[in-house]
Amino acid sequence: MDISSKLSTRTRMMQASAIREILKVVAQPGMVSLAGGIPAPESFPIEIIRQITNDVLDEFGPAALQYDKTEGFEPLIQALVNYLPSRGLVNVAPETLGVFSGSQSALDMVAKVLISPGDKIAIEAPSYLGAISAFNAYEPDYISVPTDDDGILPDALEDVLKQHTIKLIYLVPTFQNPTGRTLSLERRQRVAELLKQYDVLLLEDDPYSALRYSGEALPTLQSYAPEHVIYSSTFSKILAPGLRIGFTVAPKALMRWLIIAKQGVDLHTQSFGQAIAALYLTGGYLKDHLPRIIELYQPRRDAMLTALQTHMPEGFTWTHPEGGMFLWLVGPEGFDAEALYHRCVERGVAFVPGKYFFFEPGVGQNTMRLNFTMVTGDVIDQAIQTIGETAAGMLVTS
Amino acid sequence: MDISSKLSTRTRMMQASAIREILKVVAQPGMVSLAGGIPAPESFPIEIIRQITNDVLDEFGPAALQYDKTEGFEPLIQALVNYLPSRGLVNVAPETLGVFSGSQSALDMVAKVLISPGDKIAIEAPSYLGAISAFNAYEPDYISVPTDDDGILPDALEDVLKQHTIKLIYLVPTFQNPTGRTLSLERRQRVAELLKQYDVLLLEDDPYSALRYSGEALPTLQSYAPEHVIYSSTFSKILAPGLRIGFTVAPKALMRWLIIAKQGVDLHTQSFGQAIAALYLTGGYLKDHLPRIIELYQPRRDAMLTALQTHMPEGFTWTHPEGGMFLWLVGPEGFDAEALYHRCVERGVAFVPGKYFFFEPGVGQNTMRLNFTMVTGDVIDQAIQTIGETAAGMLVTS
Repeated sequence: MDISSKLSTRTRMMQASAIREILKVVAQPGMVSLAGGIPAPESFPIEIIRQITNDVLDEFGPAALQYDKTEGFEPLIQALVNYLPSRGLVNVAPETLGVFSGSQSALDMVAKVLISPGDKIAIEAPSYLGAISAFNAYEPDYISVPTDDDGILPDALEDVLKQHTIKLIYLVPTFQNPTGRTLSLERRQRVAELLKQYDVLLLEDDPYSALRYSGEALPTLQSYAPEHVIYSSTFSKILAPGLRIGFTVAPKALMRWLIIAKQGVDLHTQSFGQAIAALYLTGGYLKDHLPRIIELYQPRRDAMLTALQTHMPEGFTWTHPEGGMFLWLVGPEGFDAEALYHRCVERGVAFVPGKYFFFEPGVGQNTMRLNFTMVTGDVIDQAIQTIGETAAGMLVTS
Repeated sequence: MDISSKLSTRTRMMQASAIREILKVVAQPGMVSLAGGIPAPESFPIEIIRQITNDVLDEFGPAALQYDKTEGFEPLIQALVNYLPSRGLVNVAPETLGVFSGSQSALDMVAKVLISPGDKIAIEAPSYLGAISAFNAYEPDYISVPTDDDGILPDALEDVLKQHTIKLIYLVPTFQNPTGRTLSLERRQRVAELLKQYDVLLLEDDPYSALRYSGEALPTLQSYAPEHVIYSSTFSKILAPGLRIGFTVAPKALMRWLIIAKQGVDLHTQSFGQAIAALYLTGGYLKDHLPRIIELYQPRRDAMLTALQTHMPEGFTWTHPEGGMFLWLVGPEGFDAEALYHRCVERGVAFVPGKYFFFEPGVGQNTMRLNFTMVTGDVIDQAIQTIGETAAGMLVTS
């Protein structure tokens, strides 16, 4: 059978993630990878999870293994109602909360419920690719909004809102993937005002804010405009991504539609993992374990910043993220970061060329995303030395 | 904000499951429910799961908690390659296999990849509602095909294939939900021939075939037409539904698209549960435990058949399923099964009026779905006595 003749129109917008292809290439033995976007396996609280799974079976028994309601496992909903105000969320209640199968599934559901073909989504450039991959299936048009080191530019966003009917704005305001940038306090207030003024919805994707190594926590966008913001986060970076437990807070009328859509998509998120996440919160395990994850990652971020200072040739600049997993490296105008990538891979060091995070072709050719959570400080230093030397060689010959 | 003005066109086809609303009503203390469609909690191998989760953490460690590839957790893929031929599947290989977040998620993915708005799906009438709920989001038209006690009528299906361009046929050929009916051997061969002749894809949804209490196993439709059949099944009825682990076998070119679509929907199915399912297969636990589930359910099915024989008034007929979880009760022409439902609920017994399983309004008013897995034989006998007496009373007064 010729399958291609049977595909839906939306399938034409789908494509395999370019970064996943890169990750396959760099998963060779001996390769030092700054390309990944995943937590360090040594950050997983394996013995805590062993203890909790036993407690889950004792405490909830069959209820943790049975079909469950679409909104989420009741003990986890209750635990999130208690926990999320400490994360800067407002209006958190069972009617505004939903547990999704990873925050990726929340991205899918939000687009499914809101986006008709041709509807416009405003996104930062560069942006998180997984979101584009979720949204593409609903055939939107994208309007990209410029950013600087403090995140999206509110004036540019307002221009976009004036010129276009925007159905949804998508932002990762804190420790953004891929740049590590954080939207400043002043801009958060300004963006929230724009949401209300133009009556537009914004999806605040926040996987990283709990991983803060320095500086002060900032208020969520959701706290400034709870009727216009869909806030989404995950246990992937504070417990374990393999459980695929994400959680979303949205205006009540919208959450109702997200739940109806989810009923058709996967009935409910796996209850066993939700029960584990519930006890992880209520048993005080997160409070004890999160500082250990931060203690693991902070020296790695510091090592990368020091190594960049030491090894990168003149003309390169980079972000100084206060948390998260990524840092954004920008070469001189006209520098070919993809050529650098290929040369570095030959020398056993990998990263992701930044151009893959831009929606428009030809943009970001001189940019790179570096992950600092997967390897230790001394390995980071050697890897950055390799990148710096290779880049310097390219500058001399060009 | 007025959310309704922001919704996508596809959202208009979504609605909360009517049956889920019924299940909420009947979840009152003291209600005997034959309405559910879920496994008995006492069928869950809780102590096996406790043992396996410990083994998973020992054997796979962080890999069972980390992000994973979209296709599925490698040890589970391997275990399924070895296991599925015993379930009557052919051409099972890593390239034709995918693990989905419950078989519901496979239904969503198949429709997402194949169905453009207005594309036609042929379904049995009555049919599994969860599939309709998954498909609706992609705005198909439905063509319903009549059935009798041996399942879908091949001649009627051929008429439909002649008259319409059908993008997908959806069937539950074995112990169907809601009827308990099984497509006969002869009809399986005939349907498979039609698939090849008209070059059309069929989704063989098979959650129940492992739960066989009598009679002989039948070949899968997939085994007759592997290039035209997408086979989907689940661990929900043989291990635990709360884990949300489904598996699908499809032609290789189509599976590639299903995986690309899944990347955008949920990245991958939770790895911890996949690791549990892998050891459940490879450790021989399924082989030991499945007979216990069957020993639990078979007497309940037998009790329901006996009770119907004893208590139902003349004019009622019912299916005699050889497995699964449901039986289909048909009243005399013109009988109002929904009125019977309301009267029985007042007397503490619930079931699902069959009309909810038909796509067209006004059809199946005299039909009922009865679940026999959730309560013991003596309770079933009393519940059927209540239904029979109440129905008899209605016949007298009408």
